[in-house]
Amino acid sequence: MHPVDGFPIVGVVGGGQLARMLVPPAVALGVHLRVLTPHPGDSAAGVVQHTLGDPDDLDVLRDFASGCDVLTFDHELVPGEHLVALEAEGVVIRPGSGALAHAQDKLVMRRRLVREGIAVPAWAQVRTSADAVEFGDAHEWPIVVKRARGGYDGRGVAVVDRASATSTEATLAGWLRDGVEVLAEQRVRFRRELAVLLARSPSNQVCVWPVAQTLQVDGMCREVLAPAPDLDVRTAAAAALTATRIAAALGVVGVMAVEGYEVHDGDPAGPRFLVNELAMRPHNSGHWTIDGAVTSQFENHLRAVLDLPLGAVGAHTPATAMVNVIGAAPPDFHADLYPAYLHVMAHDPGARVHVYGKEVRVGRKVGHVTVAGSTHSDALDRARHAAGFMAGTIRE
Amino acid sequence: MHPVDGFPIVGVVGGGQLARMLVPPAVALGVHLRVLTPHPGDSAAGVVQHTLGDPDDLDVLRDFASGCDVLTFDHELVPGEHLVALEAEGVVIRPGSGALAHAQDKLVMRRRLVREGIAVPAWAQVRTSADAVEFGDAHEWPIVVKRARGGYDGRGVAVVDRASATSTEATLAGWLRDGVEVLAEQRVRFRRELAVLLARSPSNQVCVWPVAQTLQVDGMCREVLAPAPDLDVRTAAAAALTATRIAAALGVVGVMAVEGYEVHDGDPAGPRFLVNELAMRPHNSGHWTIDGAVTSQFENHLRAVLDLPLGAVGAHTPATAMVNVIGAAPPDFHADLYPAYLHVMAHDPGARVHVYGKEVRVGRKVGHVTVAGSTHSDALDRARHAAGFMAGTIRE
Repeated sequence: MHPVDGFPIVGVVGGGQLARMLVPPAVALGVHLRVLTPHPGDSAAGVVQHTLGDPDDLDVLRDFASGCDVLTFDHELVPGEHLVALEAEGVVIRPGSGALAHAQDKLVMRRRLVREGIAVPAWAQVRTSADAVEFGDAHEWPIVVKRARGGYDGRGVAVVDRASATSTEATLAGWLRDGVEVLAEQRVRFRRELAVLLARSPSNQVCVWPVAQTLQVDGMCREVLAPAPDLDVRTAAAAALTATRIAAALGVVGVMAVEGYEVHDGDPAGPRFLVNELAMRPHNSGHWTIDGAVTSQFENHLRAVLDLPLGAVGAHTPATAMVNVIGAAPPDFHADLYPAYLHVMAHDPGARVHVYGKEVRVGRKVGHVTVAGSTHSDALDRARHAAGFMAGTIRE
Repeated sequence: MHPVDGFPIVGVVGGGQLARMLVPPAVALGVHLRVLTPHPGDSAAGVVQHTLGDPDDLDVLRDFASGCDVLTFDHELVPGEHLVALEAEGVVIRPGSGALAHAQDKLVMRRRLVREGIAVPAWAQVRTSADAVEFGDAHEWPIVVKRARGGYDGRGVAVVDRASATSTEATLAGWLRDGVEVLAEQRVRFRRELAVLLARSPSNQVCVWPVAQTLQVDGMCREVLAPAPDLDVRTAAAAALTATRIAAALGVVGVMAVEGYEVHDGDPAGPRFLVNELAMRPHNSGHWTIDGAVTSQFENHLRAVLDLPLGAVGAHTPATAMVNVIGAAPPDFHADLYPAYLHVMAHDPGARVHVYGKEVRVGRKVGHVTVAGSTHSDALDRARHAAGFMAGTIRE
């Protein structure tokens, strides 16, 4: 099964758009890519050699891993105990199960960050609805409650006000009854949301892309500006240093995105960046690097998990904007992305359009558009227009 | 066989590195790519859905075309009569057989360019060795003799001096005896070699990348600088205009590379650019666009053959250098490209390394390195070092 050309095989667990976007750099680098994914219609399945199978099944994972030199991930929703078992059998998994656990479980992550002295929002584990009310009263309403595991793109997260605490009590009680661990968090009064993207190799090489600004809607990343406009250099340094410290402390290998908040409470000694979430894989906040940076997050993820030296991460232009193409709600909804191409490409030859080969559904990420330009407002206007036209929310 | 997602299928005849390098933009655009290639070890075969078959066989071509919306090419060595036959059956072929004939046959091309008033080196068809001697005596020795068809990367081309005319007479006689048409050409005293890369769509949209300078060794492209350093703006305009006129006159669809010579004979009204060769496909002289331009030649080739609007072709930086990785002669020869990665990538994180998944052989193009920088000399030094290290001719 191993090719005989001396180039390694990287196995990706999960066949979503992140696995798909690993294909272009793998082709350029000559690295062989294999994907394990449950459905033939998954984003990556149409463009790379893949195995159909359930990544939750240890035997399936083991079989898949046996044909690969290193295993990595499209998403974190893989049973940690399977990864521990495979590592014990000698499978090379990057990031390793010990690091990945912090991206799989928000309680594990927060406990560890506190121990490392990393600034995070105030938080507490809640075991009952009364715990949540107590947390809100002790801090400030509204609060945020989150499932510790399994949430993504805003799922498993709820903002709770004191008035609505009883109405969300049912949800919370439901989570708790399911045996899910839950935490409550202070709702941070942030200036804006920032994302730090880095890659780290087993040889301890680390590179940090310019810190980006993200705009989330309903907990889902919608827009990214890179570098974050007018970001104070001390805040940028604090954010980058925070991410680097986390990566080193947890032994992260591959790309890691640290999503967080730019804060300033007037105290010059106070924190400037609070960590919200960790992702140990290429991340939506880093899609701008495909067209906007010398080396993309996808290429450096491959280089990192193979312990190759990392590529330069500088931006091509002073301002890059990335906007997701998200299936629009009716009546704007349309399922055919291809005809929109003609208009978007004709309207803006500089727009870089990416589609994920996924069926369009309401609220689903099906592509993104990147525009690299001289100013953030120009780049963002153009990327918003193109992405909106693709989605159907903009008609001219 | 057609996917149901509304995105078209582009079929590529030939599975070399040019077909391979169409994969990354096809993945981003969501366009489905299929390749017809004779051998499973061919460059593109490992990274894209392919059909094994002989592109010289009309039935094989027809079967392959039946699963595609448009047919295009990795190389020009496809029997023109097959393409004419398929077009008569309704197959969409881009570039069409009428245009492609000019990239397949140097006599057809030169006759046509003369008719269009395009400046070319002095030339004549030669039917006997005596014709070649007559041509050389009438112009200036040495001369260049070329097979009209089937040559590439310096094959089918010979430089002939009067003294050596008899020694090359055997070669020439061999070609002529094989029924191959041959032409003789003036050996141009050029300032340098230039390449103009453009893309043209069926809707007549044309874009021209910045004119590049190429360095050929033994008739094979070795190095490219883009934009061509210190190129006089009138010469750049003349070269771009020449290419645009050719594309329009021949009805070219897709990417076309026009290789030619920068000349100046002191006559201000004389030509500044003489056309040497045409290629109607992505071309080695345009590999720099992958890392150095907003839209690569590979993406715009796909967009052009699908009649999508073309992408912007500006360069990211003031200077880009591309150097081919060519299998070194012994004792420098080494077959393993992968270990060289560690050194090249560590030495220069900004070097963009591309490998083609081909077995390394002496004199064979197996990859290229691109460096985008602020000066041509810096970019070229770095790209040469990386490519030389990959090939084995540079050891530290």
